This record gives sequence, structure tokens and C-alpha cells, in this order.
Amino acid sequence: MNPKINAGYRAGPKIRDIIITPIAIIDPPLLNAAGLHAPYALRTVLEVVTDDNISGISEIPGNSAIDAALAAASQLIIGKDPFHLNEIRQVLTAYFGIETAAQRGHTPWDQRKLVHVFSAIEVACLDIIGKMTGRPVVDFLGGKMRDRVPFAAYLFYKYEGAGGQLGFGTDSAAQGWDAARQAQALTPDEIVAQARAMCQEFGFQSIKLKGGVLEPQAEVDAMFALREAFGPEVPLRLDPNAVWQLDTAIKYGKQLEPILEYLEDPVRGQHDMAAARKALKVPLATNMCTTCFEDILSSITLGSEDIILSDHHFWGGLRASITLAGICETAGRHLSMHSNSHLGISLAAMVHLGAALPSLPYALDTHYPWQSDEVVQGGRFVFEEGAVRVPEGPGLGVELDRVALARLHQNYLQCGLTCRDDLVEMRKKQPDWEFQLVRW
Amino acid sequence: MNPKINAGYRAGPKIRDIIITPIAIIDPPLLNAAGLHAPYALRTVLEVVTDDNISGISEIPGNSAIDAALAAASQLIIGKDPFHLNEIRQVLTAYFGIETAAQRGHTPWDQRKLVHVFSAIEVACLDIIGKMTGRPVVDFLGGKMRDRVPFAAYLFYKYEGAGGQLGFGTDSAAQGWDAARQAQALTPDEIVAQARAMCQEFGFQSIKLKGGVLEPQAEVDAMFALREAFGPEVPLRLDPNAVWQLDTAIKYGKQLEPILEYLEDPVRGQHDMAAARKALKVPLATNMCTTCFEDILSSITLGSEDIILSDHHFWGGLRASITLAGICETAGRHLSMHSNSHLGISLAAMVHLGAALPSLPYALDTHYPWQSDEVVQGGRFVFEEGAVRVPEGPGLGVELDRVALARLHQNYLQCGLTCRDDLVEMRKKQPDWEFQLVRW
Ligand SMILES: [Mg+2]
Ligand SMILES: [Mg+2]
Repeated sequence: MNPKINAGYRAGPKIRDIIITPIAIIDPPLLNAAGLHAPYALRTVLEVVTDDNISGISEIPGNSAIDAALAAASQLIIGKDPFHLNEIRQVLTAYFGIETAAQRGHTPWDQRKLVHVFSAIEVACLDIIGKMTGRPVVDFLGGKMRDRVPFAAYLFYKYEGAGGQLGFGTDSAAQGWDAARQAQALTPDEIVAQARAMCQEFGFQSIKLKGGVLEPQAEVDAMFALREAFGPEVPLRLDPNAVWQLDTAIKYGKQLEPILEYLEDPVRGQHDMAAARKALKVPLATNMCTTCFEDILSSITLGSEDIILSDHHFWGGLRASITLAGICETAGRHLSMHSNSHLGISLAAMVHLGAALPSLPYALDTHYPWQSDEVVQGGRFVFEEGAVRVPEGPGLGVELDRVALARLHQNYLQCGLTCRDDLVEMRKKQPDWEFQLVRW
Repeated sequence: MNPKINAGYRAGPKIRDIIITPIAIIDPPLLNAAGLHAPYALRTVLEVVTDDNISGISEIPGNSAIDAALAAASQLIIGKDPFHLNEIRQVLTAYFGIETAAQRGHTPWDQRKLVHVFSAIEVACLDIIGKMTGRPVVDFLGGKMRDRVPFAAYLFYKYEGAGGQLGFGTDSAAQGWDAARQAQALTPDEIVAQARAMCQEFGFQSIKLKGGVLEPQAEVDAMFALREAFGPEVPLRLDPNAVWQLDTAIKYGKQLEPILEYLEDPVRGQHDMAAARKALKVPLATNMCTTCFEDILSSITLGSEDIILSDHHFWGGLRASITLAGICETAGRHLSMHSNSHLGISLAAMVHLGAALPSLPYALDTHYPWQSDEVVQGGRFVFEEGAVRVPEGPGLGVELDRVALARLHQNYLQCGLTCRDDLVEMRKKQPDWEFQLVRW
């Protein structure tokens, strides 16, 4: 005899439909090592619908090539059980092939397809699983370790401008953070003003500056201005996005040691990161030198960073990020979180993941304050003392606002952008500007 | 505004009660490097009950110290949400403290408390989660990659005897595998006869011999006899349980290379394993040199094995085993599964885990054929061509047989054993026998 098969079992619903909606969201002219943010950031919203009409949603970085990959992937996923995520990943891996770290590209964003596509499908399936079972997504990541997930203020050098149809113009009626979001920030004083306005609005208790934009001394000066303004109790971070030479990183890293919580990607590649790490006392974080599971072994061998900034969109979903957390614990790394311009669906997923992480020593990154659009019902998330409450579900705990989705899709159709290209945008302001892997 | 909180959410049931039942199951006189199996193997059955009377079960190696630890842990877990496994693990880790690899001990079984206690509670909670949601446990490990999980024939050198009350006696009415299970197996011919009977009964298509019992040439002869009897299409493995010296391992390893699928723990410790691995072409597997997450970094640095034989009872549960699978994939190891004497609750958990593993290149170990008792309704699991069908749930897909549980608990009370001690048992046959870390 076989053990009694419990009578309660029923075959689960299957995926019936997958709806891919590219959207464009207003983004101000933020500067970074790869150039300048366009007036719209692209995102893609995925809806996965089961044959009993449960709908799960997700959001990933937008890109017409990824959208095409998602459309092709969808054909392979129709009919699958949303719980069968291992099988879905296997099918997609067979279709897309193993992607190497090199395919990630040299920009601060990630060009790989499989990780994005699987992330989109996995998060939507976890939303379905949550809705099927009446439980929040965090419960399928081992349950929440905290009720609120802390984020850091994410400062940018920027040109004056609101983004969107206003472009480099501003809305003169804007107040408070809405006004500060449009203001120029190129000097230490302007960066401090940006930080004050953002922290005032969102309550952030850690501050990160996206660097790699101005020559290193100017960025170091901005960090010391922030320290002067906020005092030693507010942790500070600088991210030169890997465009410093090793000796530059060591020189300015030593200056920054007394005031930084961590220094993010001062140099390019695991070898130089390991060398900088040996020379500096400040912890090094990365989302550029150890960016995928294939990078882990050499990271361990070389000792290239202290903190891995994961991103579930780039590491292949929320469950893979939990595996990454286990690897980090095993390998003596801390885990924190990277961000790109995003709306509330991604934020919800990030919060569920952040709530599940057994250890969360650093406030997570988010671009969310830079966005003014939203695509979930109820409008934009509220931050309490810089933290976001874990949505109580079921699933991600957010629902699509279909009016907003339609409007943002119209933005996409009208803005003419099909992928992120900060170089093209930068040349509108500085025609001779070139991207350099290592600049200073 | 905050995004709309979905109205479907309700606070989940909490853990109301935890019932710990030590049991003793009949075990024949199997030989291994640490001595001899006693007439009964001890297991502990855990029932976790929620305040809405959903009951989840699990089974771990039995040991009065572990039972006491479980009882203490239970007091900390009452009132917790069974989905909140991260929090439960944190509470137990704080209570038991971080356990080191050294606390595992030198025997083939594992002396650590936290991993056993958390494994027991986690598997029972996953059973509850499955019953709450109407889904099999495998669905909470990413879903099944296969419907049947393959196991290997696990051969033992043994004295004649049935175990249990019969001790070294036999039941003369036994037929087929029941008779073969009682037969002496000390020569190559007797090992081949054991293999034939076991494979006939269970349909196994891979064969492992527990070695480290006789002098190495005798065990090598047994392996060649198996090869002669079963031919090249049946993968063979030998496990000397780390009692060979390095030069012994290299000498006999080279002889065995042409006929082994893998060689398991020929030598003790990661250093010697790495040296053996460099000298041999046959893959090395381990459940003795890389036995916990703390061992992984040095395993990577040294290159101590090709295959990690996980055991969810020793690695801290099913979800930790999934993390281990991710680590193995990242670190270029294969993952397979170790076993100890067990009944159907552990087998069900092993099958759910085995079904979820993205890669399963080797048939898993199980002692199950050596047991005749069972504690789940419907009686003992059926093997089809050496494989076990994934129970269709919900939960583990097995239910306690309370009559059997009471009987096996009586066995426990009457047999007088409180922990596994193969040395004591061995000295009943060989009074001067000593355990040696390295014997040959
Ligand atoms: Mg970065
Ligand atoms: Mg072994």
C-alpha cells in the first residue's frame, strides 16, 4: 500500500494569460556615470492570469528587447502551474540559454534577458500564490522578520528640470520635495539642500549619493558637506559607479573612511575592488563587480566586496535573492539592495523581500522619491521614518490602477523611447560627452 | 494614501501545541565504521498543532538530548505563525547559539541540536502550510521538477539477524527481501546476494555499499563482485566513512575508478579529501567533510569534494537544503542526499525536497528498505523502479497512524535506548572493538 493520499488535494489552476504593458514614467534629469536620465523612465508591467481568474502582477525595467523576450517566454509559460517556479525557470533557461556575467554590460543597468523575464514571471506568480492562499508574498520567503523595511535617501547630481513633458523645465507651483525634486543639484550646497528636502519628506535616516559624475574631489566635498549638515548619526554612502581608477579610489577612499558607512563600487571589476578593499578600512559594496551567481566564486577567491547589493530584477527573482542571502551569510558578505527608477509594484516586491531577509544591516536603496507617477491603487506608498510597512497582502498587497496603467502606457507610446540610453540623453546637454569605463 | 490593503487578508492561525514522541523502530545489525546498529533505531516524531487544529508532522533522528532540546524549543515556538519560519529560526538560534562544525562530532551521525530541532519544526510547519493551502510541500520549495524521486540500493555489511526483539535471531518464516534483510552479509558473494534481493524488491538502479567496515581490499573485492553481477549500467558507490588513510584512499581509489559512479568520504577532513580528489579521477562525495554552511568556504578554497550529500535533518530543514542546492550550483558541486534509518515521514520530506531540486544527477540514499515498521497511515511506501512518487499532498501527504505511533513509542520505552551508540552495540559482539578516526 502507498500512504493514504489526502483527500484535500486538488490540481491547482494554471496560467491562462500573460499581459505585457510597457509604460513610461516621469523621471527628472538625474546624472550618473553613464550619462543622464531621459525625461521618462521605462518600466514593463506584467499581469499573469490563471484559468480561475486570479491575476498576479509584477514590474521590471522597461526595454523593447526585454518586452519581446517576455512575449516569447509567455508562450512557453501558458498552461503552467504558478507554483511550479522551478519548472518555469528550467523552461526559460532552456529557451534563453545560460547568460554570462559579460552579457550584463558595462552600464549601471543590466542587459540580460533571462533574469529579467524570470523575475517578472516569478513575482507575478508569487502574487498569485499569495492571493490563492490569502497570505502575503513575504510568507513564501520564510515570513517577515520586521514590519517596516528601511530605505536610504538616494541623492543625485542633476540638472534643473522635472522630467516628463516639462523636460528640463519646472513646475513653478511645486512645493516642498516636489519643488526640490526639480531643482538643480551640482554643488555640495545643492546636494545638501536635496538631502534635506528628501529626508524631510520621507524621513530617511541614511543617505547615499550617486557619484561618478563630477571629478572625485567635488564628490568628496559633497560627502563632507552632508556629514557637516547631518552629523555622524546619519550613515553616508557614495557610489562612483566604478569609474575611478584604483589609485583614485584609494586616495579618496582614505579621505572618506572616517565618514562613510560604505563605499560603493569605487573601481571596476573584482580584481580592482579586492585591491581597493585591501587598502581601505571602509567596507566596500557592489552592484557592479559581483552581479550574478556566476560571479560569486571569484568574489570569494578575490575578496572583492563586503556587501552585495542585490536586485531581484537582476538576480532572477525573490527566491533567488533569498538564496543569495544564504550565500552571503555563508561567504561572509552582508546583503543589501540596489534600485533603479521604479513604481509601487517593484517597491512592494522589494519590501516583501527586505522584510524576509534574516539580516538587514543597511537601509535599502530606492529611486522611488524621484518618481511622481504610480500604477497601483491607492496612489503612492507612504514612507514612515524612511521605512515602508510590509503590505499585508494577500500576495504583493497592491492592485493595478488600470486608469493609471493606461495613461502611463500612452506616455510610453508617445515618448518614443524603447530602451534606456543615458548617453543619448547626455549628449543633448553635452554633445561631445563620452561614456568611459574608468574616468578618473 | 497607502496602496489599498486587500480585503482578503486574515491573520493566520498560530502554533498552539507541540507534541514530541520518541519511538524505537526495528533495525537489523548493520555494520559501519562507528560500530554496529542496535536492535532498534530511535526516531522522534513531532506534531505541531495550530489553534485551528491543523496538525503538521515531522520525524528526526531520536536522541533523548535532542528530545529535551525540542521540548525547550517548543516553549519558545508556541504562539508563532507557522509561516514565520525565518523568525522561528532566529528565536531558536538565539536560544541554542551558533553551533560549529566541530559540534557535529566524528561519528557518521550528527550531534548538533539547532539543526535537528529547527528541521523538525520547519518540516512540521511546512506540512501545516500545505494543509492550510491545499498544496503539497514541494510547492513551497519551488514546485516539483519530477514526479518520482530515484533512490539507490544501500547495502550494508551485517551480522545475521533481524533486529528488534529477535536481535541477532531471524524470523524463519520470512520470504524474499524480508529474509535477505536478516541474512549475514560479510563476503562479496553475500553482498551481491543482498543487492540482488534489495534490487528485486525495490527496483533500485544504483547501488551503494556502506564501507569502512572490513579491510579495504575486501570492500574493493565486494565492489568488483557487484560490478560483475550487475554490469556497467548500474552505477556503484562505496562509502568508507572517512576511515581510510590518504594513501589507502589513493591506492584503492585508483583500483575503483573504472567501476565507481563516485567514492564517498574515503578520507577524513577537507584537506585529505582535497588531496584524494587531486589524485583520483573518480568524483568524491561527502556527508562528513563538508557538513554545514560554515564548511562551505573552506570546501571552495580547498576543493574537497564534487558532490555534497545533504540531509535536511542536519542542514536545518528543507528550505535550507534548497539554499544549499543554490550554493552547490554556484560553487560547482552536485547535490545529492544522505540518509539515516528512518520511516515514512522523513521519506516523504526527502521526496518533496528531491522533487524540487533543479538538478538531481544521482539517486538518493535511503535506509528505508532496512526498516519494517511504519508510522504513517496506509503502511509503507512503495518503490517503483527504485523511485518514490511525490505524495500529492496537501502538506507532506502522509498522516500519522496513531496506533502504530503508540506501539513504536512502547518499543522506545521498553528498549531502554536513549541515543544512538554503535560502539556499545559492537562490543556485544567484539568486546575489544575500538572506534578509530582513521583505521586503514
Ligand atoms: Mg551602485
Ligand atoms: Mg556517508
